[in-house]
Amino acid sequence: MSTQIRLSGSGGQGMLLAGIILSEAAISEEKNAVQTQSYGPEARGGASKSEVIISDDEIAYPKVTVPDVMLALTQEAYEKYAVDMNDNGTLVVDESITLSGNDKCKVISIPIIKSARDDLGRIIVANIVALGALVKASSIVNEEALLAAVLKRVPKGTEELNTKALQTGFMLVANK
Amino acid sequence: MSTQIRLSGSGGQGMLLAGIILSEAAISEEKNAVQTQSYGPEARGGASKSEVIISDDEIAYPKVTVPDVMLALTQEAYEKYAVDMNDNGTLVVDESITLSGNDKCKVISIPIIKSARDDLGRIIVANIVALGALVKASSIVNEEALLAAVLKRVPKGTEELNTKALQTGFMLVANK
Repeated sequence: MSTQIRLSGSGGQGMLLAGIILSEAAISEEKNAVQTQSYGPEARGGASKSEVIISDDEIAYPKVTVPDVMLALTQEAYEKYAVDMNDNGTLVVDESITLSGNDKCKVISIPIIKSARDDLGRIIVANIVALGALVKASSIVNEEALLAAVLKRVPKGTEELNTKALQTGFMLVANK
Repeated sequence: MSTQIRLSGSGGQGMLLAGIILSEAAISEEKNAVQTQSYGPEARGGASKSEVIISDDEIAYPKVTVPDVMLALTQEAYEKYAVDMNDNGTLVVDESITLSGNDKCKVISIPIIKSARDDLGRIIVANIVALGALVKASSIVNEEALLAAVLKRVPKGTEELNTKALQTGFMLVANK
């Protein structure tokens, strides 16, 4: 069993950190993971993506080809990176995104950025809210393992904020 | 022109951060980069590797197959990951490593860990010393671009220490 995950947004929204945290949560559950970050012209502004493959077995090919689980935080990222989604996959998008109507997979639209900015008061934790939503929607890793991985990577002094951000993400999907 | 880079050591030696910094230095020079971190059983203790491909063109295949430039900070990492080096490549190793005698590529053995621990007083910056050494030995990115990328990623308040660490790495190779 292998799951291909793509996290996308704009540069500066912390998709790389989200991918690292997700990988570290997976290995704490004795799974294998490969995290890949592509830096191209788009990394100098515009859409940014971070990819993770999680598997019970060894991972031979590290590139995500057909995402099973995907996050899109911006319209540009959605339009650019959601096109090759698995039809049976799960796509979590920020509610600001206008859907094309062509998505065959399950789509969950929730106020990730608004929650980070208005409810938590720090737009910078939108990536952690998103990570909580993605994991609640897909069960790719255990929620406790994810929290432990978040707390290992966020700056000292921000543990409470990030715990709240993760729980906000869980709730956005649970209440959907 | 494409360069395959492998950074290896033990878990906790900051190879992932070194790979991210190297990628970010490359894109600041208008190159493309792909950074990959594999988390397997070895990520739960033992050898750890982080890989980067830097290219002037788009990078289709993100996996490092034959490293052109490689770093090994521990004996285990050297034995496990240096075997498939490019014969014309450059391998930078910590001086604590006993070489097999079978390496066909250029090998530069320098006191990376000792310098970080004894001269800089912080073993945690061994990855930045190593990055300086690797770039001085291979010219894969510009030294100023590398310093700027280091300063963007290290914790606030550690800029001076990390600048010194990078310069120490440059000097270890320059004086070799």
